[in-house]
Amino acid sequence: MDPDLAFEVWSGERAQRIENVLAGALSPQAGIPAPLIDAMRHAVLDGGKRMRPLLAYAAGELAGADPAVVDAPAAALEMMHAYSLVHDDMPCMDDDELRRGKPTVHKEYGEANAMLVGDALQALAFEALVAPLRETIGRGRATLPVAEMVSVLARAAGAAGMAGGQALDLAAVGARLERKQLEAMHQLKTGAMLASAVHLGLLGGGDLSAKMRQAATDYSEAVGLAFQVVDDILDVTADSATLGKTAGKDQAQDKPTYVSILGLAESQALAHQLGLRARQALEPLGPRAGSLARLADFIVHRVY
Amino acid sequence: MDPDLAFEVWSGERAQRIENVLAGALSPQAGIPAPLIDAMRHAVLDGGKRMRPLLAYAAGELAGADPAVVDAPAAALEMMHAYSLVHDDMPCMDDDELRRGKPTVHKEYGEANAMLVGDALQALAFEALVAPLRETIGRGRATLPVAEMVSVLARAAGAAGMAGGQALDLAAVGARLERKQLEAMHQLKTGAMLASAVHLGLLGGGDLSAKMRQAATDYSEAVGLAFQVVDDILDVTADSATLGKTAGKDQAQDKPTYVSILGLAESQALAHQLGLRARQALEPLGPRAGSLARLADFIVHRVY
Repeated sequence: MDPDLAFEVWSGERAQRIENVLAGALSPQAGIPAPLIDAMRHAVLDGGKRMRPLLAYAAGELAGADPAVVDAPAAALEMMHAYSLVHDDMPCMDDDELRRGKPTVHKEYGEANAMLVGDALQALAFEALVAPLRETIGRGRATLPVAEMVSVLARAAGAAGMAGGQALDLAAVGARLERKQLEAMHQLKTGAMLASAVHLGLLGGGDLSAKMRQAATDYSEAVGLAFQVVDDILDVTADSATLGKTAGKDQAQDKPTYVSILGLAESQALAHQLGLRARQALEPLGPRAGSLARLADFIVHRVY
Repeated sequence: MDPDLAFEVWSGERAQRIENVLAGALSPQAGIPAPLIDAMRHAVLDGGKRMRPLLAYAAGELAGADPAVVDAPAAALEMMHAYSLVHDDMPCMDDDELRRGKPTVHKEYGEANAMLVGDALQALAFEALVAPLRETIGRGRATLPVAEMVSVLARAAGAAGMAGGQALDLAAVGARLERKQLEAMHQLKTGAMLASAVHLGLLGGGDLSAKMRQAATDYSEAVGLAFQVVDDILDVTADSATLGKTAGKDQAQDKPTYVSILGLAESQALAHQLGLRARQALEPLGPRAGSLARLADFIVHRVY
């Protein structure tokens, strides 16, 4: 099969797989108020590129993990990401009305409920992460490194990761950042969670060799930066309908971006370069890293 | 020693212990933006009754757990509780200015930061819960049931627990609830986290007997309800300075409470009765349950 087509089939299959896992984890159930679970489903289902789950599945493949083992971390990653979007879209943050082509949660369900949706999704992410470990392997005496998996996700989401990056982002509105500072901010805000996706996928295969750990770190760093550079480019070049969120927000909110610091052409060159660096990081790992390499290409060349 | 005095010494010692653990977990460190960790410390340190940590230590004692083993769940519980207060105090929720005798986080640091403080504290709760399991026992292949502990905390905090209860609470403003509905709401909103404190403390001692599990469930249910009934009573009878938060809020916001449904005298009788029921639940367990029994008394007779 043509490699482009093969990747398309692979990513389509995995996207469908994670959709089913998420829909199952968010099915209405006794003990959860119905309007809350409705709003949580609105936030998570039917939308998004599922980039973090795809990275986790691709990394799992590299480590020889069964996709079924990666389902739980993949779902946890997407729930965590979705919660951050819900909170980020609220009036006291970015005040956005459109997300993944739908009204944002606070527009549809009110601010207080949007806050609770985010809070509940973060808790559910951790519950989903350990759920199969409880059920199938028995009370956490698992062959998988449970505590490490929880810790990796918690750190990537918290003050030393995504939430910390958001705090830096808030402080940066209207400020003139150096490129180094911009990178440090994005490294926390987006990079940490993307890296945790790769890390969790690899842990699905059990223990990691030093070689694999190093390659994953280098790959994640390049891909995390590339993701953000392309985000900044798309904010300028794409329209809201294609993005599924409001385009042109960065400039409107006077946020420092790669485009505002480097200009558009140099930002595009940087994205391309970072994509190459991500591929190079994988070279020592052989053909099993193929899906990760293809994902790096997708991240650089995506149009939404 | 006089039993009242002995309990006072015990709870003072444990309160100091958890203060140290929390201060350590929230110490400024490279990689975390300084203003964010400042605001997180404001939210967590120097304040509160530390009821959830005390319940965890007392339950740990019953299960024969070393207090050092209970430190992590105790800290996780308090971080989770503190995050819920930060979010609950925000303008889109209860809009409160005073908490634990200090300005609320959004008053001091702004709304966007308050949201991030809560988000980061929830993540840190899970990180703190598993941290010692990672370090001392080695990658989660622990004798403690890691996955179960994470799951217990996540469920108590999420849509089937605290966040779900908050959603019901929001929906109940201005509504006339039956007593049964009020109880169901509080069971989620406060009861689930108090019960998880007992559960996590017991798990610190390893596996649980069916007898202990049952007693803990009965005790937690009674203590959880008692806690809320007394909260509703204090909202009417105490002043803001004693409570460290704004008194009289329930009535001002037209929230259904035990006092509004049953009246003050009957609410006081109910609190007393629930205290007795909590003590009775512990009877089969003998003297090791002493601290839990004393905590039930404290919850019923507290004045703040």
